[in-house]
Amino acid sequence: MSKVLHVGLIGAGRIGQVHAATIAYRVSNAQLAAVTDALPSAAQAVAAKFRVPQIAVDYSAILADPSIDAVLICTPTDTHAEIIIAAAHAGKHIFCEKPVALNLKDTDAAIQAAERAGVKLQVGFNRRFDANYARVRKAVADGEIGTPQIIHIISRDPAPPPIEYIKTSGGIFLDMAIHDWDMARFLIGGEIDEAYAQGGVMVDPAIGAAGDIDTHVTLLRFANGAIGTVDNSRKAVYGYDQRVEVFGSQGCIHTENNYPNNSVLSTADSVRRDLPLHFFMQRYVDAFAAEIEAFVDAIAGDHPAPVDGHDGRMALVVGLAAQKSYMERRPVKISEIG
Amino acid sequence: MSKVLHVGLIGAGRIGQVHAATIAYRVSNAQLAAVTDALPSAAQAVAAKFRVPQIAVDYSAILADPSIDAVLICTPTDTHAEIIIAAAHAGKHIFCEKPVALNLKDTDAAIQAAERAGVKLQVGFNRRFDANYARVRKAVADGEIGTPQIIHIISRDPAPPPIEYIKTSGGIFLDMAIHDWDMARFLIGGEIDEAYAQGGVMVDPAIGAAGDIDTHVTLLRFANGAIGTVDNSRKAVYGYDQRVEVFGSQGCIHTENNYPNNSVLSTADSVRRDLPLHFFMQRYVDAFAAEIEAFVDAIAGDHPAPVDGHDGRMALVVGLAAQKSYMERRPVKISEIG
Amino acid sequence: MSKVLHVGLIGAGRIGQVHAATIAYRVSNAQLAAVTDALPSAAQAVAAKFRVPQIAVDYSAILADPSIDAVLICTPTDTHAEIIIAAAHAGKHIFCEKPVALNLKDTDAAIQAAERAGVKLQVGFNRRFDANYARVRKAVADGEIGTPQIIHIISRDPAPPPIEYIKTSGGIFLDMAIHDWDMARFLIGGEIDEAYAQGGVMVDPAIGAAGDIDTHVTLLRFANGAIGTVDNSRKAVYGYDQRVEVFGSQGCIHTENNYPNNSVLSTADSVRRDLPLHFFMQRYVDAFAAEIEAFVDAIAGDHPAPVDGHDGRMALVVGLAAQKSYMERRPVKISEIG
Amino acid sequence: MSKVLHVGLIGAGRIGQVHAATIAYRVSNAQLAAVTDALPSAAQAVAAKFRVPQIAVDYSAILADPSIDAVLICTPTDTHAEIIIAAAHAGKHIFCEKPVALNLKDTDAAIQAAERAGVKLQVGFNRRFDANYARVRKAVADGEIGTPQIIHIISRDPAPPPIEYIKTSGGIFLDMAIHDWDMARFLIGGEIDEAYAQGGVMVDPAIGAAGDIDTHVTLLRFANGAIGTVDNSRKAVYGYDQRVEVFGSQGCIHTENNYPNNSVLSTADSVRRDLPLHFFMQRYVDAFAAEIEAFVDAIAGDHPAPVDGHDGRMALVVGLAAQKSYMERRPVKISEIG
Repeated sequence: MSKVLHVGLIGAGRIGQVHAATIAYRVSNAQLAAVTDALPSAAQAVAAKFRVPQIAVDYSAILADPSIDAVLICTPTDTHAEIIIAAAHAGKHIFCEKPVALNLKDTDAAIQAAERAGVKLQVGFNRRFDANYARVRKAVADGEIGTPQIIHIISRDPAPPPIEYIKTSGGIFLDMAIHDWDMARFLIGGEIDEAYAQGGVMVDPAIGAAGDIDTHVTLLRFANGAIGTVDNSRKAVYGYDQRVEVFGSQGCIHTENNYPNNSVLSTADSVRRDLPLHFFMQRYVDAFAAEIEAFVDAIAGDHPAPVDGHDGRMALVVGLAAQKSYMERRPVKISEIG
Repeated sequence: MSKVLHVGLIGAGRIGQVHAATIAYRVSNAQLAAVTDALPSAAQAVAAKFRVPQIAVDYSAILADPSIDAVLICTPTDTHAEIIIAAAHAGKHIFCEKPVALNLKDTDAAIQAAERAGVKLQVGFNRRFDANYARVRKAVADGEIGTPQIIHIISRDPAPPPIEYIKTSGGIFLDMAIHDWDMARFLIGGEIDEAYAQGGVMVDPAIGAAGDIDTHVTLLRFANGAIGTVDNSRKAVYGYDQRVEVFGSQGCIHTENNYPNNSVLSTADSVRRDLPLHFFMQRYVDAFAAEIEAFVDAIAGDHPAPVDGHDGRMALVVGLAAQKSYMERRPVKISEIG
Repeated sequence: MSKVLHVGLIGAGRIGQVHAATIAYRVSNAQLAAVTDALPSAAQAVAAKFRVPQIAVDYSAILADPSIDAVLICTPTDTHAEIIIAAAHAGKHIFCEKPVALNLKDTDAAIQAAERAGVKLQVGFNRRFDANYARVRKAVADGEIGTPQIIHIISRDPAPPPIEYIKTSGGIFLDMAIHDWDMARFLIGGEIDEAYAQGGVMVDPAIGAAGDIDTHVTLLRFANGAIGTVDNSRKAVYGYDQRVEVFGSQGCIHTENNYPNNSVLSTADSVRRDLPLHFFMQRYVDAFAAEIEAFVDAIAGDHPAPVDGHDGRMALVVGLAAQKSYMERRPVKISEIG
Repeated sequence: MSKVLHVGLIGAGRIGQVHAATIAYRVSNAQLAAVTDALPSAAQAVAAKFRVPQIAVDYSAILADPSIDAVLICTPTDTHAEIIIAAAHAGKHIFCEKPVALNLKDTDAAIQAAERAGVKLQVGFNRRFDANYARVRKAVADGEIGTPQIIHIISRDPAPPPIEYIKTSGGIFLDMAIHDWDMARFLIGGEIDEAYAQGGVMVDPAIGAAGDIDTHVTLLRFANGAIGTVDNSRKAVYGYDQRVEVFGSQGCIHTENNYPNNSVLSTADSVRRDLPLHFFMQRYVDAFAAEIEAFVDAIAGDHPAPVDGHDGRMALVVGLAAQKSYMERRPVKISEIG
């Protein structure tokens, strides 16, 4: 593609701004053509900061603009499927934040719409583009650790979100863990076939009162025989804890957290370093940019999106299985879900 | 106790020799008084090396010797219970290698015999005395990480034992994992109430043919609400992999492996270090000594053994639950076992 | 300053492009107004990539433009002083790449011109803005390690520059080490008063043939009594090696290298990680941006430049002392130089 | 040698007890035959603890005993040379704590006496037997880092010794640094030819009042062209700091400190570990044993002592050069000393 890709941004909140910055500053063959947000001031702020030439009244206006090639959907989850379907009908390539939807029906409808329209649909599993996890994936894919046998994923937030967010989040298994189900599939390079979840309310009783839990460890079995765990807590007092380990027949690869600096201070008390990068906006800043670059490259080179609708669907399926497992206190096969 | 403790060694194999060396060289208020082994040459070798004054024809002769205060039982597992009961009847304090037995009936009989006789019974869970794990336990006990919520235990051997050993070992859940069930209880400071195991034959089909598996991850729930995992593999190509992590409301403590040196080599290829200490005889050399010192101290000071029959029993119970869970493909409550 | 700072870029080579990107993408209150380069195609490329509205025929045209507030001087070293003086006369604030000049006369003339004109002059010692070194400086300044007593600076390149570059570089003590003399002063927070250098040609005889050496360790004494070393090699096969350590009465702080990822791979051979970030364009990417942000902030807030002409001069003075020490094989007092 | 080596211990203080324990517990082909000390109670205590059959009234009695093959000299430094000479005349193999003497005349006399008598003389540079440093030496000797070019040795004590000790110690260059001069020669595998020392009184003015300094960094040049530094402080508040780094044409190897455990604690404050092993009795416990084992092996196998009188002499020579350098504020050639 010799021409510059024209991108419409639908949703100008926190993550929308991150992606706007990537298009504006890091991707030479794409530019922001329009932005919209339910909150006009948010759209205006993004337009001003990133010199976006057009503020659209709503996403329909963006989809109706024939000069726009692709959209980034950064709106609340419950609008994702509707906008994907409309964008597909309008022939736009689609980058959509995760998850596609909190239920399979909407997810499947969105995926089908994109497939029928022949547009690319990429789901925002940014962690695949993180340097640590990409290195782990490379080790597995290249056979550096032989046949993968065991995986452990640790993903703990520095603090829980507001209770109001919790209430509409879909619960820890669909909200927080959605990245981890994807990471498990990505790193192992195969499908999960069973989940058994244990957990509880350990951080804040208000989370329990809202019908959710805040801590779980889920044991997974993969179709290829590998086994593994996902460990989530809504509160790690030392900050964002994001690590994985894959063990195989010829070795093991694990990742450490990322830190704001690599200084080590020794005093009469201890040998210590500063806390890890605090949360996802610090830790995954490069991964957020890399996923948008990959999306633009997929369109430009007309090759498949690196994380597609199927990936989005499977993360949801595993999340639903883990959720069901927790509710029914038994291992749940993925095939029970869909 | 002003007098020196006289110790009889029953079983002069590999671990018996380790304990003999501890008594001979590191414990000033104890000395080896007699040794016996089913293989006379083994007893003779230990007697010569550690200057043990008496080689007994069998363990009965040691138990009949009124000058002997305590025995170290380092024989095959299937003889442990019988010797414990006899030693208790003879009024000897008892250190017995783990496990006490592979079934609850014999275990309970052994524990009761020691209790009725009023002798101390310590079980050889040496890892409690390892500097890394003792530090983790201290962190939990002192509240350095707040309320413990999640525990992960990784315990992987450098290579599987001979198939002949596997056949009589009791299986991975009772043999290899027995240390890890104890470690889980020790580090959390509470009882396990449910186990769900996933695993398989990933290392060597011959292990499967022998009726065992070689790899598992078991998800545990504790009575206090904490959750955790034990990860075992019979073969880590990089050597003995022994790590734990405990995550709590106020922090997290994890341990790294131990290495033969702390040198880091940077070349055009990589930044690397030598492999970890290869196996338990290297890694736990100090822990083996410390558990014997603690046993002697418990007798000398007449305080409870730091790892007792109940600890031995509970590790077995959890192992039986994990084994049942694996066989029946469902979570098993500890209360189902005993 | 409510208005946006208009910046002229003089020199559009590698480092000029780095600074252009910073102004274009990361600094909201500054924008590139013009660019020039001895090679017109270089200026054109930068103008196109960063949307710079004006390509100037030479630096005089930029200085003559009354709408331009500040200039970034990224030309060869032997032109720095002349351009600084002209820019000062034109009333422009000045950011100049290090070193100001390779001799004291030109350096002093440049500094005086800026002072007389009342414009800010910042020298491009980017490493002060690196997260690791900034953390070390903070530890020293805040008293976290008590009184600083010993400093060690290691600064090794992955490979030597072309011999043609070596010939006009001013030599290792003025070229490569110039950053390190500044780092020593910055981290200790005081002046150096003596240098003694040892070194030689260890990497490539052609460097020796060009009249330079490629390896040295220089022992420094500071006016406050602290002592320290600078260690430079033109070739570390494992990549850019950039570490410091400051030891004090209450502790010690040291830094590790930065890596492309934090993954650790264990195999039957070793426990290893990938090589450090390869060279300064990778390692100091954020520091290059931060120094330009600080320059813009200094102008916007009308406070002193964080690295000024005096800093540039003192790094040169120490370099000349180290060079003299090496040539004369004796410790040289800074006061001998100027 | 099929027979057991009979060893006499001359000096039953702290280090004498360490060596007694090694002979008693870790060396199967040697045993303690006699012990003496200027303080009879010290000799009695060692005899009792390690079951030494004979307490000699003085070292002459030990030397006169024809059944004794070798002696360990652990007396104050000013007696070493005299006892070495006497022991050599008596035909005993000799292990002597470092340094042989604080002057060259006595050192040379001792070395010559041993050579003429044809007995082995090993000097107590225990650090050569430390696992970290042995690994570094192996990397250099095996060419893992190519040609060694730069070495850095850091050796800092947790706290200064009593002032009374300082007064008779010979000063920091001959006392504390003596190990480091040897380490420099050992790791590089070549001789030092120049030293330039900078330092001062930074820890305690009383050390200055006693005529010594407490902190120095000495820059060394080796005959093979390599360069390096030794960094000594009498007080590192975080404990014993013992690290080296050797940089070469094909790589770099460095060592970290040793710790009592490998646990890492993350809390809301920091990510930290416990302090390093506190002092030499903890850090070098295995090295002390290994050097005695090597001494016994050298006698048993009749091969050269791994650290001989020449090594002892050269460490002294470098120390005298560094001392002279510091006093005269100039680089001093080793050839100026002897």
